[in-house]
Amino acid sequence: MFFKFKEHNIFYDIKGKGKPFIILNGIMMSTKSWEVFVNSFSNNNMFIRVDFIDQGQSDKALITYDQDTQAELVKALLDYLTLDKVSVVGISYGGEVALHFAVNYPERLDRLVLFNTTAKTSAWLKDIGEGWIITSRTLDPMAYYYQTIPVIYSPHFYQKRLDWMRRREETLKPTFSNPVFLKAMERLTRSSESHDLLNRINEIVAPTLIVTAEEDYLTPTPEQKVLKDLIPNSFIVSLPKTGHASMYETPLIFASLVLGFINTKDTEYNI
Amino acid sequence: MFFKFKEHNIFYDIKGKGKPFIILNGIMMSTKSWEVFVNSFSNNNMFIRVDFIDQGQSDKALITYDQDTQAELVKALLDYLTLDKVSVVGISYGGEVALHFAVNYPERLDRLVLFNTTAKTSAWLKDIGEGWIITSRTLDPMAYYYQTIPVIYSPHFYQKRLDWMRRREETLKPTFSNPVFLKAMERLTRSSESHDLLNRINEIVAPTLIVTAEEDYLTPTPEQKVLKDLIPNSFIVSLPKTGHASMYETPLIFASLVLGFINTKDTEYNI
Amino acid sequence: MFFKFKEHNIFYDIKGKGKPFIILNGIMMSTKSWEVFVNSFSNNNMFIRVDFIDQGQSDKALITYDQDTQAELVKALLDYLTLDKVSVVGISYGGEVALHFAVNYPERLDRLVLFNTTAKTSAWLKDIGEGWIITSRTLDPMAYYYQTIPVIYSPHFYQKRLDWMRRREETLKPTFSNPVFLKAMERLTRSSESHDLLNRINEIVAPTLIVTAEEDYLTPTPEQKVLKDLIPNSFIVSLPKTGHASMYETPLIFASLVLGFINTKDTEYNI
Amino acid sequence: MFFKFKEHNIFYDIKGKGKPFIILNGIMMSTKSWEVFVNSFSNNNMFIRVDFIDQGQSDKALITYDQDTQAELVKALLDYLTLDKVSVVGISYGGEVALHFAVNYPERLDRLVLFNTTAKTSAWLKDIGEGWIITSRTLDPMAYYYQTIPVIYSPHFYQKRLDWMRRREETLKPTFSNPVFLKAMERLTRSSESHDLLNRINEIVAPTLIVTAEEDYLTPTPEQKVLKDLIPNSFIVSLPKTGHASMYETPLIFASLVLGFINTKDTEYNI
Repeated sequence: MFFKFKEHNIFYDIKGKGKPFIILNGIMMSTKSWEVFVNSFSNNNMFIRVDFIDQGQSDKALITYDQDTQAELVKALLDYLTLDKVSVVGISYGGEVALHFAVNYPERLDRLVLFNTTAKTSAWLKDIGEGWIITSRTLDPMAYYYQTIPVIYSPHFYQKRLDWMRRREETLKPTFSNPVFLKAMERLTRSSESHDLLNRINEIVAPTLIVTAEEDYLTPTPEQKVLKDLIPNSFIVSLPKTGHASMYETPLIFASLVLGFINTKDTEYNI
Repeated sequence: MFFKFKEHNIFYDIKGKGKPFIILNGIMMSTKSWEVFVNSFSNNNMFIRVDFIDQGQSDKALITYDQDTQAELVKALLDYLTLDKVSVVGISYGGEVALHFAVNYPERLDRLVLFNTTAKTSAWLKDIGEGWIITSRTLDPMAYYYQTIPVIYSPHFYQKRLDWMRRREETLKPTFSNPVFLKAMERLTRSSESHDLLNRINEIVAPTLIVTAEEDYLTPTPEQKVLKDLIPNSFIVSLPKTGHASMYETPLIFASLVLGFINTKDTEYNI
Repeated sequence: MFFKFKEHNIFYDIKGKGKPFIILNGIMMSTKSWEVFVNSFSNNNMFIRVDFIDQGQSDKALITYDQDTQAELVKALLDYLTLDKVSVVGISYGGEVALHFAVNYPERLDRLVLFNTTAKTSAWLKDIGEGWIITSRTLDPMAYYYQTIPVIYSPHFYQKRLDWMRRREETLKPTFSNPVFLKAMERLTRSSESHDLLNRINEIVAPTLIVTAEEDYLTPTPEQKVLKDLIPNSFIVSLPKTGHASMYETPLIFASLVLGFINTKDTEYNI
Repeated sequence: MFFKFKEHNIFYDIKGKGKPFIILNGIMMSTKSWEVFVNSFSNNNMFIRVDFIDQGQSDKALITYDQDTQAELVKALLDYLTLDKVSVVGISYGGEVALHFAVNYPERLDRLVLFNTTAKTSAWLKDIGEGWIITSRTLDPMAYYYQTIPVIYSPHFYQKRLDWMRRREETLKPTFSNPVFLKAMERLTRSSESHDLLNRINEIVAPTLIVTAEEDYLTPTPEQKVLKDLIPNSFIVSLPKTGHASMYETPLIFASLVLGFINTKDTEYNI
């Protein structure tokens, strides 16, 4: 299904009934990336997915945008669906948009779950993004693959699931030589360059779960300890031997953390 | 409510309806220790608690027992309740009993969640237990308090909740000078001395969540990585800045992990 | 050899020639504890050992003292030896005295090496110390052994060197039932209760090496990250699978870190 | 100075007198990279540097080679210098060559120090290397910079020394658009692809120090724990908040570990 946001057709999907939550995609992901989770996520919840501008089935960008724009898109979707309040789950790029949503529309947020997320795009991460952009311009799919993919997965997973990685390589090749996709990736990358909420995330009041992966080399654990230190009502959990693509490396734990944190009745325990 | 097990009156409690799970107490705990969790745990589940032999409202031991006996007690309770299969959550001593249950009665186990648990009582841990026993014989409540309690909590929590610790000290004093309680503690401690399932936990087929706390000084993280390495279908999650008493130090995360792992519909994700 | 400090006969020892450094003992240690290191430590250095008040061959306390007093003792020894400046190595209690020396006598300090040291005796650590004191009053050597010793060693080491631990137990028994030793231990424990240099260690200008052991359950890693964050010209190194008694658990690494950090010619590298 | 190895002119340099050690360069490094360390390293030691085939002032490759060849080069240099035995320090590529040297010429090895080293080039690391090669062929210096450099440094260091990184970028640009350099880098990268000593490093008898950096994203800590587990007489030290380029991120600690481990007289301590 589609709704309009600033002239763009934005694709979204809803499955199941119950306490609603929306999941926000990582930069290279789309609503389709969550297909294997639909059965669990829609079992007792209203599970909402959305493709950001420049992602999946949503329109390519007609405007210049940043992560505040994407957060506004999420808010517009809630308005469109007449949902007062939802829990928000984000991973990486999606976690960053979730932070912008949390500080810009606090009244619309129930609980917040952040996987592999940083409070600020550091100079280091910006330069890694710059590398993605420069390599994308070669239109060489393998150059782009090697630049972006291995570092997303933990060495453990890459080794253990090498066949799967090789099949993924084959699947991604046509996409990674498609200039329309690569230009969208460039804009998405640029849209996160100005991300810096270090001075605002202390305003977040929603119960917040931060999930860090111990072999995440793009948004490493120290970045996520910053989130824990700055967000008042936050909790942190760490995943050993897991990399940046935590949802694929350890899907059962990903799903358990999301559903457990969002659905547990009490958030306060008077021990 | 009570049922009979090998001539003992065993206290148990059931709250709520839905997928059943039973929680097994740490050595100094009882059914009462979980009171603050009842609202969340019984919300969509049948939540079962039980006092082991020598714990809480159950009878003091009439027999010599070990953790296999306590696991048999759990199985007897399921028979009594005509429950075919349950998920089992255990912490510390309770996690060890859960392991004995898992290897002895695999057909009765759905999913397994282990907090702060070890596969074997090491010489080191045995000597710490020996210290508890020797100190208990002084009948000096403060000696027993200082011997057993500070090391259970992380320094962070102890410092942050110092008032709570001080009140707890007051509450525990009468208990810690009660020879009946201290003798029961001695038997409970002794019952875990022979615990060694290193060669059997590879038989466990249930999906298993292992939760380790990074400032747990009684069952430290390396012990729990052993569980992860040996139990085939197991997953591990780590709690930064948390100690051995994880259920009190970070109750929302404790509850989220339990409910998330037990209730998530799919355990397999064909990514 | 002995010198006088506030009416006490203080035992010290000097071996070797070269750049001087002094090593400050942990609470239960003495100059004798370093015997196995003498060959390496005196090879190219003037290696100085000393027994604090209430330790080893030094007099039992004639006065009430704290760790500032022990630091004054170190300074008095340097005066006595007419040594202008030395490097100081401390472990645990000795590391804390080293911190007091560093802030009180900065002009006498060359380089500083701290093993298993904390900037402040936390409420948690104070209560553990309280437990030592209460147990010591039972004059039961095994109660004191189990209270103090297992937690000093990592589970790895305790298990791997169980024979050595058992011999150590035998060696310590007479000491641990000696009321003179136990009273001295009580005073030493009390002398560290007021230790709190959180607001002063930022004054330390000496190059400082902080060594933390990942299975140290008395002065855990987070405590030592505080030292790293607060001491301006400081560096931190971490020892996996090592406990509080780092000098015995991994003596070659202990010696290498001491000698490497003290003897390396340049401390500044203009990369 | 130069010596001949398989028709190549190989550049080496010697400074100082005393116990000899040789340092083996990382893949992009050369003898020049160690300039700031010369004062400390030659103070009490005979400090030997060498440029591998395809590095620095040594000849570009006339033959196909792997890391066994580079290890043979090191052995040939020792023969040429009539040095019976040396200690070997290696970082990354140089650490891998050091491992080949250790298993191929055990009688020539005194002590071994390995920084940021892996026992095997994993599929994951091989694909990262493949990315370096593909990008090098674009002859775009910034593409190569962003592909190779940010991931070498920890985010902490990159941020803190951003000015230095920017100057480095300027320095590297001409090199990174030089096809001769890039072809040499390609051959060096290929020479490490077959690296796999998992089944041989248990033969190493030399005392071995393994240094792992906690924010090393090329040879992450789990890889180095494998070295620790397999090399019999080995010891491991971990560097918090440090990345793959440990020698530049924390030079004083780098130097202290090298000199401390190589020069400490005793390697056995009979505690």
